[in-house]
Parts: sequence; C-alpha cells; structure tokens
Amino acid sequence: MNDTFPCVGDDMYSLAERLFPINRSLTGDGVRQSLGILSELVTGLQVHEVPTGTSCFDWSVPKEWKIREGWIEDPNGDRIADFANCNLHVVGYSTPVDTVMGLDELQQHLYSLPEQPDAIPYVTSYYKERWGFCLTENQRRSLQPGNYRVRIDSELFDGSLTYGELKLAGDSEKEIFLSTYVCHPSMANNELSGPCVTIHLAKWLQAMTQRRYSYRIVFIPETIGSIVYLSRHHEAMRKNVVAGFNVSCVGDDRVYSYLPSRDGNTLSDRVAKHVLHHTDPDYCRYTFLDRGSDERQYCSPGIDLPVATVMRSKYGMYPEYHTSHDNLDVISPSGLQGAFNAIAECIRCIEQDCYPKSVMPCEPQLGRRGLYPDLSVKGGADSVREMMNMIAYCDGKKSLLEIAEIIDAPMSRLTTYVKKLVNASVIETQSEKF
Amino acid sequence: MNDTFPCVGDDMYSLAERLFPINRSLTGDGVRQSLGILSELVTGLQVHEVPTGTSCFDWSVPKEWKIREGWIEDPNGDRIADFANCNLHVVGYSTPVDTVMGLDELQQHLYSLPEQPDAIPYVTSYYKERWGFCLTENQRRSLQPGNYRVRIDSELFDGSLTYGELKLAGDSEKEIFLSTYVCHPSMANNELSGPCVTIHLAKWLQAMTQRRYSYRIVFIPETIGSIVYLSRHHEAMRKNVVAGFNVSCVGDDRVYSYLPSRDGNTLSDRVAKHVLHHTDPDYCRYTFLDRGSDERQYCSPGIDLPVATVMRSKYGMYPEYHTSHDNLDVISPSGLQGAFNAIAECIRCIEQDCYPKSVMPCEPQLGRRGLYPDLSVKGGADSVREMMNMIAYCDGKKSLLEIAEIIDAPMSRLTTYVKKLVNASVIETQSEKF
Amino acid sequence: MNDTFPCVGDDMYSLAERLFPINRSLTGDGVRQSLGILSELVTGLQVHEVPTGTSCFDWSVPKEWKIREGWIEDPNGDRIADFANCNLHVVGYSTPVDTVMGLDELQQHLYSLPEQPDAIPYVTSYYKERWGFCLTENQRRSLQPGNYRVRIDSELFDGSLTYGELKLAGDSEKEIFLSTYVCHPSMANNELSGPCVTIHLAKWLQAMTQRRYSYRIVFIPETIGSIVYLSRHHEAMRKNVVAGFNVSCVGDDRVYSYLPSRDGNTLSDRVAKHVLHHTDPDYCRYTFLDRGSDERQYCSPGIDLPVATVMRSKYGMYPEYHTSHDNLDVISPSGLQGAFNAIAECIRCIEQDCYPKSVMPCEPQLGRRGLYPDLSVKGGADSVREMMNMIAYCDGKKSLLEIAEIIDAPMSRLTTYVKKLVNASVIETQSEKF
Repeated sequence: MNDTFPCVGDDMYSLAERLFPINRSLTGDGVRQSLGILSELVTGLQVHEVPTGTSCFDWSVPKEWKIREGWIEDPNGDRIADFANCNLHVVGYSTPVDTVMGLDELQQHLYSLPEQPDAIPYVTSYYKERWGFCLTENQRRSLQPGNYRVRIDSELFDGSLTYGELKLAGDSEKEIFLSTYVCHPSMANNELSGPCVTIHLAKWLQAMTQRRYSYRIVFIPETIGSIVYLSRHHEAMRKNVVAGFNVSCVGDDRVYSYLPSRDGNTLSDRVAKHVLHHTDPDYCRYTFLDRGSDERQYCSPGIDLPVATVMRSKYGMYPEYHTSHDNLDVISPSGLQGAFNAIAECIRCIEQDCYPKSVMPCEPQLGRRGLYPDLSVKGGADSVREMMNMIAYCDGKKSLLEIAEIIDAPMSRLTTYVKKLVNASVIETQSEKF
Repeated sequence: MNDTFPCVGDDMYSLAERLFPINRSLTGDGVRQSLGILSELVTGLQVHEVPTGTSCFDWSVPKEWKIREGWIEDPNGDRIADFANCNLHVVGYSTPVDTVMGLDELQQHLYSLPEQPDAIPYVTSYYKERWGFCLTENQRRSLQPGNYRVRIDSELFDGSLTYGELKLAGDSEKEIFLSTYVCHPSMANNELSGPCVTIHLAKWLQAMTQRRYSYRIVFIPETIGSIVYLSRHHEAMRKNVVAGFNVSCVGDDRVYSYLPSRDGNTLSDRVAKHVLHHTDPDYCRYTFLDRGSDERQYCSPGIDLPVATVMRSKYGMYPEYHTSHDNLDVISPSGLQGAFNAIAECIRCIEQDCYPKSVMPCEPQLGRRGLYPDLSVKGGADSVREMMNMIAYCDGKKSLLEIAEIIDAPMSRLTTYVKKLVNASVIETQSEKF
Repeated sequence: MNDTFPCVGDDMYSLAERLFPINRSLTGDGVRQSLGILSELVTGLQVHEVPTGTSCFDWSVPKEWKIREGWIEDPNGDRIADFANCNLHVVGYSTPVDTVMGLDELQQHLYSLPEQPDAIPYVTSYYKERWGFCLTENQRRSLQPGNYRVRIDSELFDGSLTYGELKLAGDSEKEIFLSTYVCHPSMANNELSGPCVTIHLAKWLQAMTQRRYSYRIVFIPETIGSIVYLSRHHEAMRKNVVAGFNVSCVGDDRVYSYLPSRDGNTLSDRVAKHVLHHTDPDYCRYTFLDRGSDERQYCSPGIDLPVATVMRSKYGMYPEYHTSHDNLDVISPSGLQGAFNAIAECIRCIEQDCYPKSVMPCEPQLGRRGLYPDLSVKGGADSVREMMNMIAYCDGKKSLLEIAEIIDAPMSRLTTYVKKLVNASVIETQSEKF
C-alpha cells in the first residue's frame, strides 16, 4: 500500500458539483442517474433494482416516486416554491395535487424554519401519503391572503428501489465494508460528501496491487436501503466483515467526528479512535445514542456488524443540516480530502495491523545494525526511543494497533519501524497472535 | 404491580408518633409492645422469642432488661434526669442502683455532649454491667456540690430476645429481603422511620395480586438481632435471597443516601443506584467502610447476602443522631414517603426486570404501528428517540436494568415501552438471557 | 521480621564516600574493586567473571577496558581535562591516543553541556571505538587556538565482565530479586546509592532468623550485565521470582518515584504503590515508557519478570544526572535511609502477605476478648474501626495487601491486627486463597 494518499480533494469537489442538482430520493431516476455518474470512476459498480413490495425483515420496499414539477402560484399569479428552482421546495414523496385553496388551508401544507428564516427546510413523508411545500420563513411571512394554486405533478407507483454495489477481492475472504447513501436531493455535506469520498476510496482501493482484505462498498438509500441490503446479505456479512465504516457528512472543514458502533470496541472503533486522535486530538466524540444513519441497522441486535462512523461535522450538529443552506459552500476540497485521508488511514491501519514479536529475549543490539546511536550522551537517544518503546511491547500477544495505543504513536510510523526491524531479523510478524 | 405508589406519608408519621414514647432496647417489653402495634397493619407478622444464653455464631443472646424507674435527686431534693420524662436519661442496660453519693463520684456515671450542650445523648452498655445517666451538658454544668441520691429500679434477668418476621409467598422461591430494627428508645429518624416505612412496604406488598418474588421481612434488634436471625436462617437465605435492603434512617427530608453491600455490585446495589440517580442525582454515595447497621452482619464473610441500604440522612451524619434531638421534628410525612417510594421503586425494578429481545433484525417499522411520527422534519423525532434507544439494546443479553443504565432512562419509563412493544410483537421478553 | 528497620543511613553514606573515587565502567578493575568493598558487608557475595566474546542472546561480552591516564596539554603546557582529577574527563571506553593537534580538530573529540556550563558531562562509547574528552562548557570556551597534545593511555583487550551475586535461602524456593548496577565512574545518586542501599538490604535480610522467600541479589554492569545474567539464569528466574526491584537512584531527599514493570500490575507493582502511597502520597508516578535501567531487560518480551523500580529522584529527571554534579552533595544519609525503608517495607509486605479468613460468620464479638470498647457512645468506636474494616474483608479470598488497598490502611498496621486476631482465634491465615 502507498505511504501517502492521492490528492483527490478537487476531483471529489467537482464530482459533488456535478451531482448536486440531481433530485435524489429513496427511489427513482435521481438515484439511478447519480449511480451512473459514480460508476464512471470505477470498474464493476453493480446497480441493483429491488421491486416495490419486496419484503425485507419488518419492512417492504416502498413505491417509487417520480416528480415532474411542483409549484405554488400566489394570488398575483407569481410562482413561488418552485421545484424547478430548488428541489427542496416539494416535500419528498408528495402525492400529486392540482387545486386552488385559500392561504389558511395552504398553511397546513407548508414547512419553514422560524429560527432559520432564510433557509428552506428538507422534509419528507415516505410512509404516509401527503403533499407539501417547503419554503423560507421569510417567504412564508410575506404570503398575502387570497387564492393559491398548488400543483405537484408527481407519481407513486410500483417500481423499484435502486442501489449500487462494488466488490473488490482481496487475499482473504474477510471483508472491510463501506456504506454511503444516495437518497437526498440537493444537499452537500449531508449527502454528496458521502458518495464522493466513498467512490474515490473505492478507486484508490481498486488501484492497489495487493489487498489483504476484500471490500464490499455500497451506495444505498438510507435506512430502507440498508435494511434491504442486509436482508439479502447479512449472513455473509456477519461471517466475513471484520470492520466497516458508514461514510456520511464528510465534506466540511470545521471538525472531525466519531460515532461508535453499538459495541463500541470493535476493530473499526479502535482504529477510528486511533486515527482521529492523531489527526486531531480534539475530534468530537459521540455515543451510539447520538446515532442517526445506517449504523442504526448495521449495529442492530441480530445484525451486529462492526460499523463505526468517521465524519467531519455530524448530521444534526451543524446549522445548515437538512436545509437549503447545506450547499456547495459548506463543503470544500480540503474538507473532503481530510475525511478521505482519515478513512483511508483507518483502512490502511487495518490492512497493516499484525502481531509483531521480538525474535530474542532482552533488547536487541540495534547499534551493530546501524539502528542505534553509538555514543551515549545525556538526552542523546531520544530519536530512537519510540522504536525501542515499540520493541518493548512486541511480545507476540499485542497487535501493532494495541502497541500504537500503549505508546501513543501513530500506527503509520510504527509500520515503518516494523519493516526495518523485520529486515534486520529483530522482530517477526504474524497476522494472528503467536 | 401498580404504576404509582400509595400515599402513606401521613399514616407512617402517625405510626411513628404512636411508637415514639415506648422504651425499646435490645430486649424487653418495649420491643414486644412495638411489634404488637406494627402487627396491626399486616396479616401474619410472627413474633419470635429467643431465650437468654442461646448461642449464635460468636455471640449469645444477652439477658433481658427491664426498667421501672430511674432518676437523680439533687441536693435540693429536685429530681433531674428522670427516665419518666425521657427514656434517654438512663444508660441502656443499666444495672440497678439506689444510693447517695457526692457530685465527684456521680460525675463518673454521667454522660453529656459538650459540643451539643442542650441535647441528651443516647448511651448503652449492653455487654458490660454498669449504670449511668445521660443529661444535657447545660444541665450537667449547673450541678452544685452536695449529696445526690441516684436510683435505677432495673433488672437484668434470663428472659428472651424478641423479633418479628413476615413472609410473603411469591411465584418464585427466590426472595427479596427487607430488614429494619426495633431496639432504640425515643428516637425518630434513627429508629422509628425504619419500622414505619418497612411495615407500610409490607402492607403494600401484601396487597399485591401477584408477586414474582417471595418476601422475607424482619423487625429485629440491631446487631445481636441480625446475628440471631442469621444463625437460624442463613443457609436458606444464601440460597434464595436475590436482593435485600436494610431499612434505616428513612424519615427526614434533607437528602437521599446509598450505602453499598460489601460486594458493591449486587442486584440490590445496581437497582438502588439506578433509582436514586433518577430520584435525586445528587444523592450521597457512601462506601461499605461507612457501614454501621445490620449490613455489617448481612454482608459479612461467610454470609455475603446482597444487602444494600437506601436512606435519607445516614446515621452518624446528621447532627441530631443518637441524641434527644432526633425527635419527631426531624422526620416528616414527605420524608418518609420519599424513602418509601425509593425502596418501593427498587422493589418494582427487581420485580419487573427482564431480558427484552427484538423479534427481527434491523430496526422495526414503528410507523405502521402508530408508534413513530410519519413526517421527517428537522429535530422532529425526539419524542420517540428514547424508545428507539431502548430497542437498539434489546439484544436478549442485556437486562432492562442494564439498558436503563446505558441509555440513562428510568426503568419505570422503559417498562411502559416494553409493554407497548410486546403488544406490538416488536420485542419479546424472558426472565433469563436469551 | 523486625517491626522497625535498622538505622543505616550514615553507614550507607560512608560506604558511598569510600566507593566514590573508583573508576568503574562496564568492565574492569573498578568494578572488581567496588565488589571487593561491598563484599565486606555480607557473607557469600560471589564474584563472577564472564570472558570477552561470550555470546548472550543478541549481544556478546565486550572487551575489557583499562585506563592508566588521560589528559590534554594546552598550548601553554597546562594540563586540562585530566582523568587523574576527575574520571569523567575521559569518554568511557576511549581507545588510546597520544598525538598533537590543532584546536579545530580537537573540538571534534570534546563533549560539554552548553546549558550546564560548569558541569562535566558523562559520556561513553561502548560499542564504537573512538576517543574523547569531557569538560565543562566554561573550560571549553576558554580554549585558545594553538597546538594541543592529547594523551589517553588506555587499553581494550580480551578480558572479562565482572558481576556480583548473593543468594539467600528461604523457606520457599520462590524468590525475591534485587538488582543494582556498578558501572558508572564517580557519580553518587545515579550509581553509588544503588549498591550502597542494596548491600545494606542484603545485610538486613541475611541477619533475619527466618525468611519466607529466597533472595537473589545481583550487582552488575547496567544493560550488558543484566543481559549476561539473564542469559544464564532466566529460566530459573522465570520459574521462581515472585517479585523484584531494580535499585537505582535511591540517594537524594527530594522525592520518591515509582516506575512500573511492563505488566504494571505484578506483586512488585502493587506492593511498591502501596508502600509509596503510605510513605508519601505525592510520590512521582512514571510509566514503563519512562524506563531506562535494567527493567528494560528484566521486563522484555520473553523474559517478563515482575520487576518494578522504587526510586528517589529518577535518572534523567534531576539536573545533576549524568554529570560531575551528581556528587556526594546530592545524596544524604536520610535520602538513602528513606529509600532503604521503602524497599525494605516492600519486601516485608511481600514476606507478610497472607490470606486472612474470619473463623465464624457475622462479626466476631471482640468485646468479650477485650478488643472492643464496652460502652456505646456517639463517635466512640472510632479507634477500632480500622480493625473492624479489615475483618469485614477477611473472606479468605483477598490477600492482606488487597485488603490494605480496599480500606486504605498501611499493611504494617494490618499485620499487627492479624497477629492479635489470630491469637484471639477470630481469624486464621493461609499463604494461599482458602
């Protein structure tokens, strides 16, 4: 594996720009169109369609939703809340409507945010048939009494739910799992950052000459998509997945965040905490009680996959979340690159983890191997101290990741020592405990 | 079981008023009289008599003590420290005396509290024969030189030690154990609060239509009484008792307190901490090193019962303790009711604890069962979040109490969710791990 | 064993004065001479010689080093940096040299400490052949351009490495291990305090009429000496050593310090922390990452001995360390005695540790044995409380050391209670769990 990661911040940002205008929802052509664009970057991204009504655990695949237009015409004949201008204006999964009503009746179909008066909220109604419009609080306050024409040209029909899946074979059948979602309309951090970072991680992994683990990478609608996917694959996944990451909200520059798996101490959790500690010691730590994305399914009782989440600003915790303000200004090439690096480093730590063991009792004589200063001066040996600390714990029972935690050093640096010391026949390594 | 607890604060306080004047000691008619009054509230309270000299572990039952009168006549012929006015005036278990002596000699038989000059201390001498008087420091300082007549008309004789025992059968032979003491003369928080709360807990338990556990409830003299009781029943108790509470100092309004079992992590401890955390997060936490009541015996090596203590102001920690100031002004109906509720809630948590398990993998679809909001709005799902958090841990391996701890919610609320979700066939429960 | 320790502070200090001028190194006559002086204090100190070139794990015994004289003659013909004045002036293991050179060339062979301008540093070059001089920064700055004659009359030759070993038999084959080093020239805290305290501990142990454990006490050159010793004895030591202490930097008065074994929770660690907590609750706690002496070998993977270190000011952490300032002013009789007491107390705790068990269930009746006050007064029983706390944990499963930790009392005091209570047939003890 490479020692540094590809610089793909600009590529990820451009990809987000291209995907931004598409109207994604739980189902429908927006998802298909987005997966089509993503599949340009890698080989072998499979697109699956699951018919409406298919049963999956306690759920079934919903109807497919299609919308052609949606707007309100005010008493002056001006169009407001026009879906053509912003796809957040229509409540997701709105049923069709074409009628005229007074302002009072209309109000019951309007959604706005009094505390964020210039933001259009994002609202959906997946499981109850209704229609509605979202608009800014300021716009709503300016509405005058009178007759309003409302029109949503939409359709709910037996179609299918669409998701993408990419599998990369590795030396082992054991898998690392990545999951991201494609189901929100025009929002940047809480939608597009996920697939943009994930497809570039996939591209990076696909370019590797050797992978220790196999990879399972999915692009799904949130919640129902993960339930559908698990209903088909949970047995194989429970058997093979050694670590997994839900890739969500990975685009802005403000902070790094970590949300644990339900177990809290899986390999994914330990490696995520390790990497974030060395990326930014002040990263935000959440608990599983703060969950809100597909870890809800992946970590549910009976599924119990080791899935943790490494984010930038977490969903629900930044002001632009689930509004029209979560636009391309919120994310940046460097924000995306930071998240890419953190998750790629998590993956690299897992790929390179091993059980190192000193070949001989007592400290090795590094001096005659050119690995130790030959003069003992006060304070002189500081530069090799970290390597000596690592060797002190190479007892064949502790993994390199555990050692990295004990001596508080980044695993990326320990990996370079391991290479040197294996070459010098001072330590040997195994993938299992000695 | 009921969802709310009976309002018995006034009843408990009245009972304390009635019991207050009686002169209780380790043995004797004061104990018998008190048990007689308590037995009016429940059916089946058995009174046992254990003869003086009966051997029990390292101890033997002491002589019975009877006192008819006790006073000092000062040089002016005025009676002071008269037992008839306050039964704390005579040192407990005083031998008889009727003589005249000078002030200097008398001083060696007097007890007072320099730092609490208007309080009569409570002093006993159970295991060495002596006599003495207790009086206020102020009174003592006013004594003039001269001849004092001292008279204690008491008797130490082969009689018996008296205790009360109530057993309530439940579905299981496994028992919950309650212990309180009846051996102090006129003191309120550190004596009468215990039997008053305990007898009302017994009445509440007796009125239940169904009990999962059996109950063993004892009213005993402290220390020697618990040793006597254990010497007769410890084998059955070690086999059956799943949880127990020593009921002591449960009458005032100032604070809630918790003293752990020796083990510190028994079911009693976990449930006591849970209930007190939700009753008053600032409750006083003691350690087993602060012990001072019958948990000393119940938790001793070789006995090891899971007995924890839930109190209001702990013995030894409030200024009126073991003095005449621990009177009926210290306790109150609301103080007694607060303790009643806390211990009753502990019992209810144990009765209702179970292992809940999600019927299906992944989150259940609560929406179609009317248990989840059908519109996804920013910040909208907060009201069902706690129930979803509970479900996320219903893996069949964690008890409801453990889940309550993880999600930091009162078990009483989780119990209502469990009922709903069992009815909706979303979870199932067992009394053991799945 | 005695209840108090011998007052040997002055003896230890005098011994340090006597050993101070000797030029010790990894090998050579300085070590032999020092061991000769130490062997005057005890019977049976064996001196071993291990030939140059002997293989030991990853290392081999180095050549022996002998130095007769070493000095620089400045352009004025004045001798500076003369080994005869201070044996720190010549870099340890310097090869012979006798030549004239300019100041610029000389500078490359000089060592000084800019931040401590009046201290001569201590420098060695054990594993690369070179020569050099150490001097104060002030002296170095005063050197004028011109020709300097440098002369070191030394020799590196096939000889041997010398160490001392004392074995004391005890009732058990299980051993307590003490290790200290004799390999530094004239330095006091970081050299002589170690052998001076250790030989007096040996003398104290030898004088005991009965020892539960056997003792293995070694005086070795640091690092290579412990590696040599382990290569010969590690199998027996791994089988028998139950606790061990590296005795280093035990002479000054400033502070107490603790450095754990690699495991961190061995008997040595637990007892060291216990004793230091009761010696000075503010003692300095280091981690194994701060290690720097022979615990590096004793605790290395594949050796894993339970060796902890109890120090006064730790090597590397006090300003005089590894300079000419670490002289006899740094250490003191009281500093040495404090360390002696701490380590002796660690040993005594191990010797006296046991599993106490109450003979009967419930609390014993101490009153009738004269061990409990016979009058119950408010606050009266405080003086026996600690003993009662101990008894409360005498369940036959917890060692006296564990009980001392739980009730936060010094084990020396608990030992006196144990004696009383065993005599009173209240508890019994075993060396293993009941």
